[in-house]
Order: sequence, then structure tokens, then C-alpha cells
Amino acid sequence: MKKIAILGFGVVGSGVAEVLTQNKKIIESKLNEEIEIKYILDLRDFPDSPFADKVIHDFDIILNDSEISIVVEMMGGSHPAYDFSKASLLAGKNVVTSNKEVVAKFGTELLQIAKENNVRYLFEASVGGGIPIIRPINNDLVSNKITGIDGILNGTTNYILTQMNENGTSFADALKDAQAKGYAEADPTADVEGIDAARKIVILSSLSFGKCISPEKVSRQGITQVSTEDFEIAKSLGYTIKLIGHAELINGKILATVSPRFIPLSNPLAHISDVYNGILVEANMLDKVLFYGKGAGKLPTASAVVADIMDIAQKMSNEQAPIIEWTNATDEDIADINDYLCKRCIIANGEAIITEKINLADAEKIAASYSANYKIYSIL
Amino acid sequence: MKKIAILGFGVVGSGVAEVLTQNKKIIESKLNEEIEIKYILDLRDFPDSPFADKVIHDFDIILNDSEISIVVEMMGGSHPAYDFSKASLLAGKNVVTSNKEVVAKFGTELLQIAKENNVRYLFEASVGGGIPIIRPINNDLVSNKITGIDGILNGTTNYILTQMNENGTSFADALKDAQAKGYAEADPTADVEGIDAARKIVILSSLSFGKCISPEKVSRQGITQVSTEDFEIAKSLGYTIKLIGHAELINGKILATVSPRFIPLSNPLAHISDVYNGILVEANMLDKVLFYGKGAGKLPTASAVVADIMDIAQKMSNEQAPIIEWTNATDEDIADINDYLCKRCIIANGEAIITEKINLADAEKIAASYSANYKIYSIL
Repeated sequence: MKKIAILGFGVVGSGVAEVLTQNKKIIESKLNEEIEIKYILDLRDFPDSPFADKVIHDFDIILNDSEISIVVEMMGGSHPAYDFSKASLLAGKNVVTSNKEVVAKFGTELLQIAKENNVRYLFEASVGGGIPIIRPINNDLVSNKITGIDGILNGTTNYILTQMNENGTSFADALKDAQAKGYAEADPTADVEGIDAARKIVILSSLSFGKCISPEKVSRQGITQVSTEDFEIAKSLGYTIKLIGHAELINGKILATVSPRFIPLSNPLAHISDVYNGILVEANMLDKVLFYGKGAGKLPTASAVVADIMDIAQKMSNEQAPIIEWTNATDEDIADINDYLCKRCIIANGEAIITEKINLADAEKIAASYSANYKIYSIL
Repeated sequence: MKKIAILGFGVVGSGVAEVLTQNKKIIESKLNEEIEIKYILDLRDFPDSPFADKVIHDFDIILNDSEISIVVEMMGGSHPAYDFSKASLLAGKNVVTSNKEVVAKFGTELLQIAKENNVRYLFEASVGGGIPIIRPINNDLVSNKITGIDGILNGTTNYILTQMNENGTSFADALKDAQAKGYAEADPTADVEGIDAARKIVILSSLSFGKCISPEKVSRQGITQVSTEDFEIAKSLGYTIKLIGHAELINGKILATVSPRFIPLSNPLAHISDVYNGILVEANMLDKVLFYGKGAGKLPTASAVVADIMDIAQKMSNEQAPIIEWTNATDEDIADINDYLCKRCIIANGEAIITEKINLADAEKIAASYSANYKIYSIL
């Protein structure tokens, strides 16, 4: 039997308990052993929950309990999630998380500590919710050199853009609708400004290229300036608009961007609607593969967390597991945004010009020659 | 260092050698050891190949060489591929294959022999070419109960149907075009009659439901009767037509079908064109996930084979690996096709009727009441 502790009993944390309970039989038959939730750490009590008797408020109980071999960090935010994860790994406990903020900011250090302590730090649910993407990149694409990634990584913004595209809804109304449906938070900044997507592209880029750039170094643009007129122009030219997290190597340096982009309708990403996510990976042998599914939601995300728990339960030692490891990128590892050439759509005076592959500075020069008031979309 | 033998130096076999050579550095850095091709078994010689000196003609040399820990069966066909695989497993050697025919027919036995001999039998490349699907179902969806699978599993027929859909090409002309491009063989039976797709849905269904039905028990219909008029009707109703391998449980019994189906344009499978494959998996926690990519081709398929080789190299013993295991289905495990209810499109007298969810027998009765000459498409 493996005993685990869940840190944080919010949406995903309680989802993990639900998956472990509801799919108990199937999980145990695959593992040939039980997974028992011994503790749930939260500031609150949950007297009406079937897990009420597991709830504790003192992390040290978990840290000092040698029976706990897996800590499931579902707290969100940087602190104390990072601190508890680090302490757990240092104490020789495996850690599973869905916390993209911690992985993007502190992943390098935590993976190193895990390695030194012969335990594992897994984070399948940090990108794409329930969609398998971290493990497939690390296990299945392992014989490939990854050359590029393009992902619809944020369900909230994809829902908003889908409403704008399909129903001609304005950004403001689509955002209100998303908030009413519970897809967007009261303060939607992290979603609509691309901050969430930037963390995720950092994780995917670190996995793919072995160097982790700071989320602040991602060239990032949100969707607040996208208008229904832009969608009409895109449509008339055979495109749609999606918020894309993009990463590639340019002369060995990492380019990572988040921006609303024109997507040709022939690209499978163009047809990923509503709160769904899709991640297109390009690799040197495999060409392109796409992973698609619900990028959020209690049970889908929790099922990815439980897959990580089961992976660890099968391979408690990291010696036989494919290790995830990357180093921090220095400024020299990061590509200059102006070394990135792609086709652009310049919108000025209500007209659209599609360019050849050019860099942003040149696109801006062309745009400025038409009007002081312009928009530039890069084209995927 | 791990020494391997490749059986069969055709398209995929030579692709494996190419991936191992071209991505040698990346593979060795991930494994911390070398993979060496010691033998290549083929009836032919390849004097101009850089691997000419590895080519042998006697399988017993491989079988009796204790240095060979991984046998890579790339021969195709049932025999001697099955016999060599079985002998290798019995001799305590791991086996990797892309041979869907052998896996669908003999997988139950070979997996059992692998288990008994503490080695592994892996076949990621047998379905979806380079698309990760076997390992994700077995590792990532492991905390889920899989409830259904719908896949575009054959690139040749998808290319033909795409030509018919987009260009109004007749089936006969689209087939000739596919043959001219090398996508279809001179005898296209296995593709156009759905035999290839049936083997693949058998493998996916066995993985998902734990019971392997014989490929002959799959309710199978090819694409030879699909006409451009059918596409026009489908289009006018908001559908397209794809050859779909489908599996689900009906009252605990396995339903497995291969047939051309109407796909609503809102379904992501509707937008998978040309030789691409896509596999949509439904699971009880995860909802739907889709895996998409090139379902065939030398290097994509070979890269999946090499991922299996690397998986084995990391975990030579099966003790710490997620075991794949299923039993043979008996007739009692197989659902009656008439227990399968779905929406249908009945085409009779040039008109189309969309029904509620009904079984095939009832659909046939309704169709016969309109005309003796009818077609029925099930709707996804």
C-alpha cells in the first residue's frame, strides 16, 4: 500500500480524492496495490466531506510521517506550494503537482532536488489539464529531436475567442459570458493577458529543449485587443484567430511567445473550439502530432494527477524511470524576437496585407507606412 | 550498451536504423548508454547500405546470441514474424514490433509469454504509425475507465475519402491517385475493405477493455460503396464521411466496428484529412482526448519503434514497467451488433432521412419501406 497526502482540497485536490475513490478498483487492479489518502492539508475543515477525518492543518505532520511516500501538491500559487514541495523532496518524498506557476518558476531547482534525493517530481496536469502531454513528450517522443511547439494552452481565452469568431460577440461580452459560466475568474488578467499560457509554454519548452526560461522572458501578448473586425478580416482570408503559445529553437536559442495569431483553416489547431486545448508538437522524425482534449476541469485534471501518482507507485525509485531534467536558461540561451521570421497580417486603415516571412521590426515599419494606427498578427 | 537485432530491412526496418543513426546523440544522452544494431535479418543483401555488414540470413544466429536483448520485428505478415517473435520471447529477449497483424491475432499469447519470461512485448507503432497512442492509453489514461474509442486508423482510405470530399473525385479515380502516390498498394483490399483498420481497432479495444476479439469478429464494412453523391448529401446535412474504427462496451460486452460513417463537422475527427490519422478516446474522468498525426511513413513509424526500444532499454525487467496484458475474448464477450444503437442516415431514392438512435435491423426495415435500393450510414 502507498500512502499519500494531498496538499490543498480545492477543485483539483478534491477531484483527486474523487478519482481515487470512484476508480479505486481499476487503479488497484493495474497497480496490484492500494493507494490510501492518509492526510489532506487545508486551512479549512470539511465536516460534510467523506474525507473529513483526513483533514489536518499542520504540514509538519506530513513531512515527519515516514509512511507518506507521495505528496500531491494541489494548492496553487507560488507559496507555500513551492516551499512544501521542496521540503517534501528533501525529505525523500515524491511530489506530484498541477501547479504550472511553481513548475515554470522553480521546476529546475525542484527537479534537481528530486534527482539528488532519488525521488520524482511529476507535473503532467500542469499543462493541458487531463491531456497527456508531458509524459508523451518525455517517453514517446524520446527518440525525436523536438523542433517546435504550438499550443492552444488556455481554455478560458479559447472560449472567448470562439464566441467572438462564431457569434460575433465583442471581447467584453464574451469575457462576461465566460465569467458567468465559471470559465473566467473575477480578475481575468492571468488568462486574457496570456500569463497562464506563458507558464505553460515555458514548461513545454523546457521539456523539449532542456533549458528553462523565466516566464517573464516570454514575448507575451494577450487577447484584449482582438476585435470582431479582426475576426472578419481573418475569415475573409481563410484564417481564424487563436491565442497560441509557441516555442522553437532559432540558431540554438529558445524563442518562446504567447500571442493571438492567424491560423489557416487547414491547420488542425483552427478547429479546436470552446474550452478545449490542443498542443501541436513538431519533431524531426515524427513530423507533427497533436494532442487534444479538455485543458481544465476537476476530474480530467485530477485524472492526470492520479496517472502521475500511479507512475510513481510503480517506480518508486527514479533509477528506472525516464528522468525529466533541465537547466535554467541564461540570457544567451534566449533568441532575440527579431530573429523570428514569420508571415504576418498587417491590418491598417481597415485593410489587410499578408507579408512574406519577416521579423516584427520590419512588419512594424511596413505597417507604419500605411497608418499610425495598425495591428500586426503573426500567422502560424 | 544494448545490442539489438532488426528482423526485416524494408521501409520501417531501415527507418529504425536511420532514426538510431541520425538521432544517435539525443538517444544516447537520454539513455546514458548506446544502442547498437548488431544484426539485420533479411532474405536480401544490401551491399550499398551503410549497414551491409550487419545483414544476416539465419534467424538462429540472433536467437542464440545472448548479447541480443531486444529483437525488433519489422517483417510484416503473420509468418514467420509471429514464430520469430515467440522464439525470441521464449529465449528471454524483449520484442518490439510494428506488426498489427501479429499483435491483433497473436498478441494475447505473446504478451503472456513475455510476462512469463520477464521480458516485454511492445507495439506502439502498430497503431497510428508515429502517433503516441498505445503507451498513453496504458500509462496516461491508467487512472481512467475507457468507455469508447473512435479512430481514423487507416491513412490510405482517409486520403481517398478526402479526395472524394474536397474534389468530388470518384472512388475509382481517388484510389488510382492514391496508388500513383504510393499511399495504396497494387492490391488495395486490406485498406479499402477495412481489414487494416479492423486489426488496429482490435488492438485498441484489447488495451482498453482487457479482452482481445479476433479481427474476423469485427463488424466490418469498407469504403468501396461510398459515392460522391453520398458526400454531397452528407455535406448538405452538416457532415462529412470518414472510415471509423469504433469500439465500446455494451452491457459489458465489446462492440467493435469498422465502417464509413457520417461525422458532424463539430467533431474534431471531421477535420482530419489526407493520410493523417486521429484517435479519439473517451474515458470516464478525462472525457475526450484526441491523438493526431501521421499514421504511416518510414521515419514517423520508425521513431515510435525506437521509443519502444528506449523504453525497454530503461526498464529491462518488466517488474517496474506498466504491464500490458489482456485475455482472448469468447463469443460471450462480444456484443450483438443489433444491441448497438446510434443515429443513422438512410439514403434512398436520392433522399436522406436522419433517424433517432436505432439499431441496424430497424434502420434496414425503415430503409426498405422507402426503396429496395438503399444505403445506411451510422452517424458518429
